[in-house]
Amino acid sequence: MQVVECASYVAGPTGGLTLAQLGAEVVRIDPLGGGHDHRRWPLAPSGESYYWSSLNKGKRSVAIDLRSPEGQELAVALITAPGPDRGLLIDNVVGRPWLAHEALEAKRPDLIHLRVQGHPDGRPAVDYTVNAAVGVPQITGPEGADKTTAPVNHVLPAWDLITGVSVAAGLLAALHDRERTGNGAFIELALSDVALAGVSNLGWLSEAELRGGDRPRHGNHLYGSFASDFATADGRRVMVVALTEGQWKALKQATGTAKVFDALETALGIDLREEEERYRHRETIAAILRPWFAGRDLDQASAELDRARVLWGPYRGMADVAAAHRRGAHPVLADIELGDPGRPGPETGAVPSTSITARSPLRWNGAYGEPGESPVLGRDTDHVLTEILHLTAPELTGLHDRGVI
Amino acid sequence: MQVVECASYVAGPTGGLTLAQLGAEVVRIDPLGGGHDHRRWPLAPSGESYYWSSLNKGKRSVAIDLRSPEGQELAVALITAPGPDRGLLIDNVVGRPWLAHEALEAKRPDLIHLRVQGHPDGRPAVDYTVNAAVGVPQITGPEGADKTTAPVNHVLPAWDLITGVSVAAGLLAALHDRERTGNGAFIELALSDVALAGVSNLGWLSEAELRGGDRPRHGNHLYGSFASDFATADGRRVMVVALTEGQWKALKQATGTAKVFDALETALGIDLREEEERYRHRETIAAILRPWFAGRDLDQASAELDRARVLWGPYRGMADVAAAHRRGAHPVLADIELGDPGRPGPETGAVPSTSITARSPLRWNGAYGEPGESPVLGRDTDHVLTEILHLTAPELTGLHDRGVI
Repeated sequence: MQVVECASYVAGPTGGLTLAQLGAEVVRIDPLGGGHDHRRWPLAPSGESYYWSSLNKGKRSVAIDLRSPEGQELAVALITAPGPDRGLLIDNVVGRPWLAHEALEAKRPDLIHLRVQGHPDGRPAVDYTVNAAVGVPQITGPEGADKTTAPVNHVLPAWDLITGVSVAAGLLAALHDRERTGNGAFIELALSDVALAGVSNLGWLSEAELRGGDRPRHGNHLYGSFASDFATADGRRVMVVALTEGQWKALKQATGTAKVFDALETALGIDLREEEERYRHRETIAAILRPWFAGRDLDQASAELDRARVLWGPYRGMADVAAAHRRGAHPVLADIELGDPGRPGPETGAVPSTSITARSPLRWNGAYGEPGESPVLGRDTDHVLTEILHLTAPELTGLHDRGVI
Repeated sequence: MQVVECASYVAGPTGGLTLAQLGAEVVRIDPLGGGHDHRRWPLAPSGESYYWSSLNKGKRSVAIDLRSPEGQELAVALITAPGPDRGLLIDNVVGRPWLAHEALEAKRPDLIHLRVQGHPDGRPAVDYTVNAAVGVPQITGPEGADKTTAPVNHVLPAWDLITGVSVAAGLLAALHDRERTGNGAFIELALSDVALAGVSNLGWLSEAELRGGDRPRHGNHLYGSFASDFATADGRRVMVVALTEGQWKALKQATGTAKVFDALETALGIDLREEEERYRHRETIAAILRPWFAGRDLDQASAELDRARVLWGPYRGMADVAAAHRRGAHPVLADIELGDPGRPGPETGAVPSTSITARSPLRWNGAYGEPGESPVLGRDTDHVLTEILHLTAPELTGLHDRGVI
């Protein structure tokens, strides 16, 4: 399948990336010189964006002057090109009449057009605004902070990433349907709806309504169960989880605290095998476990926790993750070379930049796929226009001369 | 298409929910009495789990004694039932030989089997441990906190939700492939890989490696651009974003600060039209804007920001979101009745519990779909076994008598 992507920032491009890594050919159309996110941070020393390159790898890059009618016509022709595996569009545009679904559908009635939006009524929104509006920052952060305290935003654009993968699922479902019925579809997907669906599907809106307000903040404790972070003797930290009775038993065994908790259960008349009791007594449980962690460095704690099959994980900084990647610890990660492979190489003194990026986390019959090559803005314009629209060399020359491509 | 789901907690069930809301028939198999997450918080006053009901709505529920060989045989028969639209499995099990891919594939060679894992080597992990291990909590939270300070976990199980939607995309891609080639697939998807892919695709690992450590924490400022939160006169808060030059211009216009920033640019020799300059001077920009927000209540600020087309959003608590839903503000949300519709209704004094849950955020040709009915554990067992495995009434009776179903 061949998908055309006219989208910037995280959500739309993540949709195209997901499909590209699943084997689709993705043709990304950018304005000449790149969109708003082409040089977005973080940047490599070469000035290239680690972000843009990683989210758009494995795609073909077409650059067109999208303000010119001739450029718009080219883009529309690519989007509506005939063929059973073509006619699939991801966009996130607002208010461009030439990309209106009706206009495109008139040229290809079975077009599958997935539009990423901010709000479902078309108003703009981004991850940081929708996250604020669904209430997640109000329940994030240190225990005891009441609701007049400043909210704590999460830094991960989680709703963008969820929206991006939803784009891929939606397009694949629509293609499945088109192959049976011949019908195209206009599918809209608002970031704000993704966030509302996310928190409501976890039961959080019902609970807040029942409670008449937000649940309290719990720091790094888990709501409704037992999980907490502990510091080790060497200044590292670990996250330890006991959702099930088996995990709780393993944690008591590893830390040699079974008898302490038996006595505590008797003294308080509680049964800590029940998840909600572990939640209610989370501070007490954590206080009893803390000295065990404080008395061991991470290596020692790690060995003992693993031996007892405790569900846990270390906290790592991202530089630690990159270092683990250098040791080959994470086969899902891969290095790609940034930018144009034709530019000056090490022999001329310029060191090519590379980027740590990822393969698809979906492993097919035991194997990860390739991550995809780093994109170079506009590198594939001539090739794509020749292949899909059958433009001739003189036609391409004319477009270049007129500054359309 | 018909998908069998043997999965608990968030990721696998989100995959099945996504597919069910896209039109698939999802048959969920639970152990008799329910899995570990059947009564997970938050709970309705009736004791039913808002969480389990919301994540499993719109699915058919089959309950089987999965410890008995006879029960395992039934589950395997459902998973490997013949038919071009069957033979699709989502699971997240570890170490159950009867659900090993080789065993299932022997019965249906073109089976599509998607297994959700913790780590790719099969070790368990959950959202809270993988998030710690990829470094997100280290860069979350108040500005100035250095890396020896406790990490700030996010409360949203973001990696679970991303993994869940990836399950749906992976299964649809595999079905698309099977329809062309006849080939099945064993697809593994580790939560840990999803998290590593997420942070590396944003360029964050490359940057941490280049920097030799974590980027500093920025509180509610956005890294690499300008976005920040402001308090209004009535004690509310808003999140304001200026990623593009146009958004920055709108923000200056709304707040009447254009001349202040002009003068500041001259005084400091900077150009705030550049995103990275807005990032570098974020504290100064925020300090200059703060009095404007402090001098207006939310309604007034809202009207003025919208008039100037500023990209912004209010912070809301989840109870506020639920209240907005009661006013009809969010068509993606819907109320479903929890539990068995056959149980005593209002006329007997028992008030049925309802739950605020969501339709698919993917709007098809302008319309949201139905959210799907609340599941009742085991309600569809007899029906599904009759329909798919053609069991007779005496056979069902025998299974009930032997406690298998």
